[in-house]
Amino acid sequence: MQVGEKDYRAVWMSGTCVQMIDQNRLPFAFGALECPTSHDTCMAIRQMNVRGAGSIGAAAAFAMAQICAEAHKLSEGSRERYLSLIEEGRQRVEATRPTARDLFHATGLVHQAGVTSADGAVRVAHSLADGYVYRAARIGELGATLIADGCNLLTHCNAGWLALVDHGSALAPIYHAHQQGKRFHVYVDETRPRLQGARLTAWELHQAEVSHTLIADNAAAFLMWQGKIDLVITGADRITANGDTANKIGTFAKAVAARSLGIPFYVAAPSSTIDWQISTGRGIPIEYRDAGEVLFATGPDASGIQHTIRLASPGSGAINPAFDITPAEFITAFITEEGIFAPGELVHAFNPSKQ
Amino acid sequence: MQVGEKDYRAVWMSGTCVQMIDQNRLPFAFGALECPTSHDTCMAIRQMNVRGAGSIGAAAAFAMAQICAEAHKLSEGSRERYLSLIEEGRQRVEATRPTARDLFHATGLVHQAGVTSADGAVRVAHSLADGYVYRAARIGELGATLIADGCNLLTHCNAGWLALVDHGSALAPIYHAHQQGKRFHVYVDETRPRLQGARLTAWELHQAEVSHTLIADNAAAFLMWQGKIDLVITGADRITANGDTANKIGTFAKAVAARSLGIPFYVAAPSSTIDWQISTGRGIPIEYRDAGEVLFATGPDASGIQHTIRLASPGSGAINPAFDITPAEFITAFITEEGIFAPGELVHAFNPSKQ
Repeated sequence: MQVGEKDYRAVWMSGTCVQMIDQNRLPFAFGALECPTSHDTCMAIRQMNVRGAGSIGAAAAFAMAQICAEAHKLSEGSRERYLSLIEEGRQRVEATRPTARDLFHATGLVHQAGVTSADGAVRVAHSLADGYVYRAARIGELGATLIADGCNLLTHCNAGWLALVDHGSALAPIYHAHQQGKRFHVYVDETRPRLQGARLTAWELHQAEVSHTLIADNAAAFLMWQGKIDLVITGADRITANGDTANKIGTFAKAVAARSLGIPFYVAAPSSTIDWQISTGRGIPIEYRDAGEVLFATGPDASGIQHTIRLASPGSGAINPAFDITPAEFITAFITEEGIFAPGELVHAFNPSKQ
Repeated sequence: MQVGEKDYRAVWMSGTCVQMIDQNRLPFAFGALECPTSHDTCMAIRQMNVRGAGSIGAAAAFAMAQICAEAHKLSEGSRERYLSLIEEGRQRVEATRPTARDLFHATGLVHQAGVTSADGAVRVAHSLADGYVYRAARIGELGATLIADGCNLLTHCNAGWLALVDHGSALAPIYHAHQQGKRFHVYVDETRPRLQGARLTAWELHQAEVSHTLIADNAAAFLMWQGKIDLVITGADRITANGDTANKIGTFAKAVAARSLGIPFYVAAPSSTIDWQISTGRGIPIEYRDAGEVLFATGPDASGIQHTIRLASPGSGAINPAFDITPAEFITAFITEEGIFAPGELVHAFNPSKQ
């Protein structure tokens, strides 16, 4: 996407240096973070300098490519040592974020190529990142057909170009419809506790000049009740074969409200987010993050100086599940690169036995 | 309630000076705010130094009593001028918070007494505050029967003693069950944007040594889906004759999730919160507060110095409805001072035609 005069992807690799838009500094500063080693890239995934299903996938692919290149040097010609190093490295990447399906998809593909050669791993990683961009663009074209002129949408968290290398998943149809000249309005859940809606989606939509308004997560169901939301589009971190969907905490609450009020609820995701190995959402591991994300907040004061302040009463603890599961029955359809499918159509549409 | 060695109410009047626990300074500082004039008391209601349905009601009653006393002095024996001043004053109080039913209930009663005499207005205001305390205690006794040993509850916002002069509405049964020696755990929605859950309910429960955990509002439906919530209890700001309920923004979202997952959802409130003049929730005016409550947050850093930081992307605006409507069909029952009633039983139970 264009920022200022320049086109950016959320994550890319130059030589063996992985680079990414530092999403922890947005929206208050825009810049790239350089990760010269696989260790740096893994840290960046864990600390969420890069986040979002597809961007995590691409970053994990690049980290795996770095691991193969590093192992190639370290192993000094010993194939046994090389294979052991890339296997150990793969486990290191996969320990960074347990819920994101695309991460495991990426490490699997790049590791497989790396078994043959480190150069091959680098090529596969680039091609995987390019694949996200292609599929995101298709999701945008297909999903835009759901956005009628004059409608109001709700989105949760950030499933924009920052989250999917380019274009986005949930936001790709919004960008495409905007380019088509459709007029519509997007309500953006702030998405506590990390505020990816308030910080990343709002920033993206402002950059793209898409009409939007922030709301507290609590207000989403009320806007639906008021008749102010015509459809909901979110992204996904993992989709199981039956259509149950892990996505940012709070997604399920919006889906329940939407169904109760008869509002269509769409999940936009590339097919790489589907985990054919897990039959229902109960099998998806849910990442719990630090309670500090709930208890404290960091941001700039009026002079631009960053502070970390306590939000909550000092005597109280918190739990912080980062994702939730939206059962398939609450999802109207999935917007994928291959088409728009009801949950029950996924298996037939993608024929996973051939994958 | 006891804080340290002393018993406090959330709001009280000494002579003609209204005093209240300053809820905007909690949980980081505990102290009283003095409001020597009705103007000060109205400002305190508007700026939420005092908040919560019953505490607003009592504060409004005291403000109306101050107005009568002030009008008595200013009118210098002219009854016409006195009546005009107390009518103008009543409108001033009623403009502070449009959604709270108890505010209008209180100004109506105290104004009526004030028509006869300013001294009578003061007596009625005190009696109204005492009435809240009595009814809150009854809500506690009755509601505690719903709390089984070993259960897990969810509550939203703050409907504790701070919100209802003493004891609370939603928290009164929790305090009562705790005193009975029952063991249970309370999950507390942080309640964005003003964080009354994280700041006030968490502080209250910590003071009372009730086991509790804070969560982001987004996590409530997920905990329900995980089977970790046995019942939900919230307060109410206004209940219509059919049982539709206005309460803190986000209440509706929890009620929808609870019903979808078969979890009982209770609203605890004194009968003064019921507005018999409005037949459904569509008729309740909803207060919209400043967008700054969504876009910024204030709190202390590690050294205790307060900062106001920006949470959201600088280019984006927000809307901030303070309340939502939970339709009666999502409410299992109301816990009132007279008993626990399904929505359809309210009219029969309270026989409003006699009130």
